[in-house]
Amino acid sequence: MKAVRVHEYKKPPSLDDVPQPDLQDHHDVIVRIGGAGVCRTDLHVVDGWFENLMPVAAPFILGHENAGWVEAVGDAVTSVRVGDQVIVHPLSTCGVCSGCRHGEDMYCSTSAFPGVNTDGGYAEYLRTSQRSLVHLPEQLAPAAVAPYADAGITAYRAVRKAAAILRPGMTAAVIGVGGLGHIGIQLLGETTPAQIVAIDKAERGRDLARRVGAEVVVSPEDAPATIAELTGELGVDVVIDFVGEHDTPSLALEILRQGGTYFIVGYGATLNYDTTLLVLREITVVGNLVGNFDDLVGLMRLVERDRVRLETRTYTLDQAVQALDDLDNGRITGRGVLVPA
Amino acid sequence: MKAVRVHEYKKPPSLDDVPQPDLQDHHDVIVRIGGAGVCRTDLHVVDGWFENLMPVAAPFILGHENAGWVEAVGDAVTSVRVGDQVIVHPLSTCGVCSGCRHGEDMYCSTSAFPGVNTDGGYAEYLRTSQRSLVHLPEQLAPAAVAPYADAGITAYRAVRKAAAILRPGMTAAVIGVGGLGHIGIQLLGETTPAQIVAIDKAERGRDLARRVGAEVVVSPEDAPATIAELTGELGVDVVIDFVGEHDTPSLALEILRQGGTYFIVGYGATLNYDTTLLVLREITVVGNLVGNFDDLVGLMRLVERDRVRLETRTYTLDQAVQALDDLDNGRITGRGVLVPA
Amino acid sequence: MKAVRVHEYKKPPSLDDVPQPDLQDHHDVIVRIGGAGVCRTDLHVVDGWFENLMPVAAPFILGHENAGWVEAVGDAVTSVRVGDQVIVHPLSTCGVCSGCRHGEDMYCSTSAFPGVNTDGGYAEYLRTSQRSLVHLPEQLAPAAVAPYADAGITAYRAVRKAAAILRPGMTAAVIGVGGLGHIGIQLLGETTPAQIVAIDKAERGRDLARRVGAEVVVSPEDAPATIAELTGELGVDVVIDFVGEHDTPSLALEILRQGGTYFIVGYGATLNYDTTLLVLREITVVGNLVGNFDDLVGLMRLVERDRVRLETRTYTLDQAVQALDDLDNGRITGRGVLVPA
Amino acid sequence: MKAVRVHEYKKPPSLDDVPQPDLQDHHDVIVRIGGAGVCRTDLHVVDGWFENLMPVAAPFILGHENAGWVEAVGDAVTSVRVGDQVIVHPLSTCGVCSGCRHGEDMYCSTSAFPGVNTDGGYAEYLRTSQRSLVHLPEQLAPAAVAPYADAGITAYRAVRKAAAILRPGMTAAVIGVGGLGHIGIQLLGETTPAQIVAIDKAERGRDLARRVGAEVVVSPEDAPATIAELTGELGVDVVIDFVGEHDTPSLALEILRQGGTYFIVGYGATLNYDTTLLVLREITVVGNLVGNFDDLVGLMRLVERDRVRLETRTYTLDQAVQALDDLDNGRITGRGVLVPA
Repeated sequence: MKAVRVHEYKKPPSLDDVPQPDLQDHHDVIVRIGGAGVCRTDLHVVDGWFENLMPVAAPFILGHENAGWVEAVGDAVTSVRVGDQVIVHPLSTCGVCSGCRHGEDMYCSTSAFPGVNTDGGYAEYLRTSQRSLVHLPEQLAPAAVAPYADAGITAYRAVRKAAAILRPGMTAAVIGVGGLGHIGIQLLGETTPAQIVAIDKAERGRDLARRVGAEVVVSPEDAPATIAELTGELGVDVVIDFVGEHDTPSLALEILRQGGTYFIVGYGATLNYDTTLLVLREITVVGNLVGNFDDLVGLMRLVERDRVRLETRTYTLDQAVQALDDLDNGRITGRGVLVPA
Repeated sequence: MKAVRVHEYKKPPSLDDVPQPDLQDHHDVIVRIGGAGVCRTDLHVVDGWFENLMPVAAPFILGHENAGWVEAVGDAVTSVRVGDQVIVHPLSTCGVCSGCRHGEDMYCSTSAFPGVNTDGGYAEYLRTSQRSLVHLPEQLAPAAVAPYADAGITAYRAVRKAAAILRPGMTAAVIGVGGLGHIGIQLLGETTPAQIVAIDKAERGRDLARRVGAEVVVSPEDAPATIAELTGELGVDVVIDFVGEHDTPSLALEILRQGGTYFIVGYGATLNYDTTLLVLREITVVGNLVGNFDDLVGLMRLVERDRVRLETRTYTLDQAVQALDDLDNGRITGRGVLVPA
Repeated sequence: MKAVRVHEYKKPPSLDDVPQPDLQDHHDVIVRIGGAGVCRTDLHVVDGWFENLMPVAAPFILGHENAGWVEAVGDAVTSVRVGDQVIVHPLSTCGVCSGCRHGEDMYCSTSAFPGVNTDGGYAEYLRTSQRSLVHLPEQLAPAAVAPYADAGITAYRAVRKAAAILRPGMTAAVIGVGGLGHIGIQLLGETTPAQIVAIDKAERGRDLARRVGAEVVVSPEDAPATIAELTGELGVDVVIDFVGEHDTPSLALEILRQGGTYFIVGYGATLNYDTTLLVLREITVVGNLVGNFDDLVGLMRLVERDRVRLETRTYTLDQAVQALDDLDNGRITGRGVLVPA
Repeated sequence: MKAVRVHEYKKPPSLDDVPQPDLQDHHDVIVRIGGAGVCRTDLHVVDGWFENLMPVAAPFILGHENAGWVEAVGDAVTSVRVGDQVIVHPLSTCGVCSGCRHGEDMYCSTSAFPGVNTDGGYAEYLRTSQRSLVHLPEQLAPAAVAPYADAGITAYRAVRKAAAILRPGMTAAVIGVGGLGHIGIQLLGETTPAQIVAIDKAERGRDLARRVGAEVVVSPEDAPATIAELTGELGVDVVIDFVGEHDTPSLALEILRQGGTYFIVGYGATLNYDTTLLVLREITVVGNLVGNFDDLVGLMRLVERDRVRLETRTYTLDQAVQALDDLDNGRITGRGVLVPA
């Protein structure tokens, strides 16, 4: 089959002919890929950020945002059947460790992360396990929803935690309105009563924010003054930072009110803050990993009811390098998706 | 009356003769002081840490951990009567702002903080308001319980937040076993099922930790190895850091497990952490301000039932400088208390 | 002034000339009434349901859903000024008891309930206290929002509790789409991601349900079959019962899924259920009282942002008996409001 | 092997020679029984209470509180090995349905309940699946801990829910101090700061309550007066009813305070309550099913740390009828356990 593989860090991946994956375990499932989302994490993977954190032998296939159809199932598989239309949770998990038993798939002690530390879905077929598969209703085409598998549930998880805080009268600021941010804004609107302020340095992002329902849209430079006026000098109750690079942590901490909570989703920057202020302002800072299986189920129910919509741009498998380059240079509105021919 | 006042930052306070405070507002209450706790924050106040954060005109009376007897009440006071034995929440609050209506006294928009930005309780009498007063049952002498008014509720608030996380099978580490830490350990024992690891660099602190119920007691140097072994290399679920100075944030983040929560109570250090790790390890960092009125009520109910005990050392008012010096040099086990003659 | 008073239980109230209320306490506030909502509880008050539960000496003025303008303030009042436009929380509270300190105004140990056990707002003026008053922005006319003061916050409180349960993919059923129900449906839509099923025996209620955003609307007879199909035979996760009379408890328990929660808001019926089923089905039943002050603040912030709308029908003070009769006979869509001339 | 089987409802079970169970599925595990708890539910099973609710073909083996050693494992089993010492969660679950993915094993859509609707552990061997097995440390003998498998986790689940409510200063009443109740009291003590009132009609139960840490112990007749005095006429914040038969619901609702919560664990009685009171007193009633796998894990961690102790009385398999009779007639303190020879 065709597959896009990384051969060497910091070099562009290439389109290769490789053997199709086969069933190796009782719970294995082979998925024929209908769409694979193109994610900023793919850029980080290519650049070798995870070389030591989550080692993998090159060459390996990229792609952790996958959806498609069940092609083959292992002999202990009971939850899906050949032909089922599915979206794939990015982690393959064991089901019996403490993390799995608590529903926290990302904490699985023996997991594999296709596209990061094992072969992913920039390909015609993917091997995963039954525990990763969520049924898709007929009307949701895999290529149209694949990015929910990671971008979607990562935004969902942060918003879910924020929703436990956000009561009527509160304000939430979103930093960064790209693939994750434009889902996050819709989820805040759908699951919380908060007033939403969207912050993006690019006009493209601010336009997208307005389209998906942000009530106030502003550039990073204007954010502190706008928010001070909006909140009677108090600041916002919640910041969700989908960027986490450069100086977004400083901006986030500046616009937060006393007792406020800062959710960090994007990563790369260093958090640097005086504990005296952290205590006097009673700030909480929350790291957010990819969502779990249940987050993916919940999100797809909202998508089914048309409460969240994705802006996507489609590429063929052999355009993968172009898609990554477009993402890196801010030329994609919403999310790019690779579709095998 | 006699009162211990700061005249100039970074200079020792002095024992002065000053006028006794009088009733100025409908809700004012004059409290005859039975005991005033000596707190690390008093050292910070003397050193001028709060000079810009919470300005005050010198000279002013120190002391924010007060208990005693009601001496006089304003004409709208209904909740206490002259002669009542009371402990004093450290903040005087308005009762009608958003913070007060949510029970979050520390967020009061027009509050005063006796001993920090107005006259405190290192004196024979203190002016406060009815909203700050919690009744003490007869058996709880003011001098024996005064430190609960700040050290107590600050530990209580952090433990209360931690208790919402700590389930059976989890482990909580406490950094620093002094005035706050030795209350915190008891509260963890009384209100959560967590296994408690106490960390203190001094033998005095480690002894105190054992006396108040910590199951594992260790020095900062030995903490990482001990905790790794205790938790199967996972780390603790919760760290409560009562020091927050020097490199305790690094230690805290090192011993925490994936998905763990770091509560910062002591302050002074800078928090410095890579957001990539914060996200991958899904760490939460929680700043903790002094507790609210309800925290003080709850804590005193535990004290009444003898579930929490305080180790104190008594000084007279004219020994205030000595008491502060003893605290600064680690010569007090538990908490110092000033008692007017 | 003109006022509508109950002289004898089970007899229609009458429009009387009575003295205007005056300031009696430091915190008292006199409100000039702009609108007073007409509530099913008023019918119950007239019928004597509260004769023993909350005794009052007749004659007394009806009306617990009040809004208007501040006419006069006591000498310890700080949160409102003469001329302020306000909505009135139905309970006058002390501010210092345990209930008040927890923000649970309805649990105040020395409260008064205008219109139930003291004079209410079916009149030109009302005496209340500053703790009951929420500022209204200029664009929210008192007569247009008065019903939020009780109908609104009662629906809000039940929905707020339900919102802590309702995750994406869940379904909530609302029984009864009148004054409270049509607010409740909007609040579910605004503050939760639940799919909403509205149940009303009258076409008038079902029409209203559709207008305010219910996704599925059904009669009580058709509800069990419709819900079984909608939820794959599982049942709904949450029922909010705004009726609570006749056999609505049976219907609610029938349509609930295992692990589901039944919120009772309307009252009058008897709850009768086998504990074996309660345990095997692991059902939770939640009684809901009127909301607290903070609930009223939160609700008004949603109203300000035009997220909740009220359907009202206006009557003059001398039409009070007509308004009560219209309510009793199902002739009001949404909520009736009395407006002094 | 030897096994105690029900042949006909309302007739005593008999000790039979039956074939040893074998592996039938990839995830099956055969457990050699070390101990099987004798539960009130066994009496109900024999009496046919579950004949229609959870049908089973007679004859079948009783016993749902099992512990022992792994004898054989299916080819997809990864979490246990032959020889492991284990305690058995009472339900065999699928692992992939919605209930299982949320960690709520009792909500599994295709579960089997050994001892109720399939063969249980009043026998030498039991067939279960890997998902039901929790490792026991060497020092915890199966016969000494078996009752935790159902009595333990059922008490644990109710206490876990109550712990989310119980803050310092609150009071919890426990009705019924037998097998479940004496575990529940210890769990309340270990995981909450509540003051505990134990209510039992028998001196045997009241003695046991005192031994396991209840602060106040009282008969049902004296409970209302004692609690009124203890709580300043307010009532308790929480009732956990381990009986649920006869008139315990009336007692529970009588002693509860406004805003209080009534947890029903034992069953059989009918709940009968006026919704007007339910609303005015804002009471919550919570049904409680058997705990989930995670509850069993958490509980065993407390047992390992010696924070909870079980009072047991041992019987041999051929004394099963005697054990059931002793339970039915209140002759067992704590819990009976069958131990195969």
